[in-house]
Amino acid sequence: MIESDVTVILADGQFPAHPIPLAILRRARMVICCDGAAQKLIGSGIRMPDYVVGDLDSLNMELLDRLGDKVVRIESQESNDLTKAFELALSMNSEKIVILGATGLREDHTLGNISLLSRYAENADVLMYTDYGRFMAIYETTTIPSHKGQQVSLFSLTPNTPISYKGLKWDITERPLLSWWEGTLNEALGDSFTVIFEGGRVLVYQAYMQKV
Amino acid sequence: MIESDVTVILADGQFPAHPIPLAILRRARMVICCDGAAQKLIGSGIRMPDYVVGDLDSLNMELLDRLGDKVVRIESQESNDLTKAFELALSMNSEKIVILGATGLREDHTLGNISLLSRYAENADVLMYTDYGRFMAIYETTTIPSHKGQQVSLFSLTPNTPISYKGLKWDITERPLLSWWEGTLNEALGDSFTVIFEGGRVLVYQAYMQKV
Repeated sequence: MIESDVTVILADGQFPAHPIPLAILRRARMVICCDGAAQKLIGSGIRMPDYVVGDLDSLNMELLDRLGDKVVRIESQESNDLTKAFELALSMNSEKIVILGATGLREDHTLGNISLLSRYAENADVLMYTDYGRFMAIYETTTIPSHKGQQVSLFSLTPNTPISYKGLKWDITERPLLSWWEGTLNEALGDSFTVIFEGGRVLVYQAYMQKV
Repeated sequence: MIESDVTVILADGQFPAHPIPLAILRRARMVICCDGAAQKLIGSGIRMPDYVVGDLDSLNMELLDRLGDKVVRIESQESNDLTKAFELALSMNSEKIVILGATGLREDHTLGNISLLSRYAENADVLMYTDYGRFMAIYETTTIPSHKGQQVSLFSLTPNTPISYKGLKWDITERPLLSWWEGTLNEALGDSFTVIFEGGRVLVYQAYMQKV
């Protein structure tokens, strides 16, 4: 089920190739591109950006003219293009935000972008879809829809927080996830699972099922 | 400068495409493949694996026959194929280990593999090279060779550890890196930089320079 009231932020990593992020991109109410991602989106022929955010060094003049007031030039060193795009989305009352294109090239950008998701999710309903799965940031006990057999990985951004889960093949009870690998390669047993903790930050990754 | 006394562990992520990891793969003393990575290596025409570790479900019988006693079948659920390969490398007195192919496909595998590097580096001289840069795990104050202008990102796996650095464009003094994005997108000012801390775990990422 892909909804159409979504604001997509297209980051300047690898352009989506999987049918799920591509469908989200096609049906989105609005697409905000981070700088060079605008060129990738236009090159894809899928649609035009609604807004482009960044210092825009990499965009040609003709395109900048064509986009006109859809270009939001912000040169602040205090935040990166993804954060600028997120703030623009918020300022336009986006209720559901999906981040695409945030992974797949430089690994330091991938790590940074994934952790920014956790920061953004404090202020909005925001998810990140990649070519392989979906990241969601949670801050307290949460029950998450799943499919039986779906691969699930959990990453604690507050490594000392005791975490329990139910509904996954490998259960734990009040155990901190000290290393990123400790919560990986789990599997959903049914149509939901629950991650139980208080006052921490956890990322939940769900790999796409074979059957899309 | 690429040394030839290196043991390469080829993980089953994206097969290397960048000239630096490919040169390391070509010149390695020994290559240990994690399961399906053996097929990718053979398919590349670059060389044959020296050892293949894993449950080997994905390899065909003809290949298994051909590899003979180079196949190390370990079905333990307690550790993943990357860890099995690392233990095999250690058992054969590998002094320098390079992990390749550990990123670029499923992001949960990428995160898990990157954090395993930090675990492995406690016991060996081990680095991870990707198509975009190199990860090194450090545990205390360390000076790292660099190139002027090289992009550098730091990730603290012990988010509360106070960290300082010198020789990078954006310096910090005794500040914890609470989120992964906080240490990203820095830049080396010269031919080395120093990361200063005690008793924690930090990952240093250096993007390749344009000039390889």
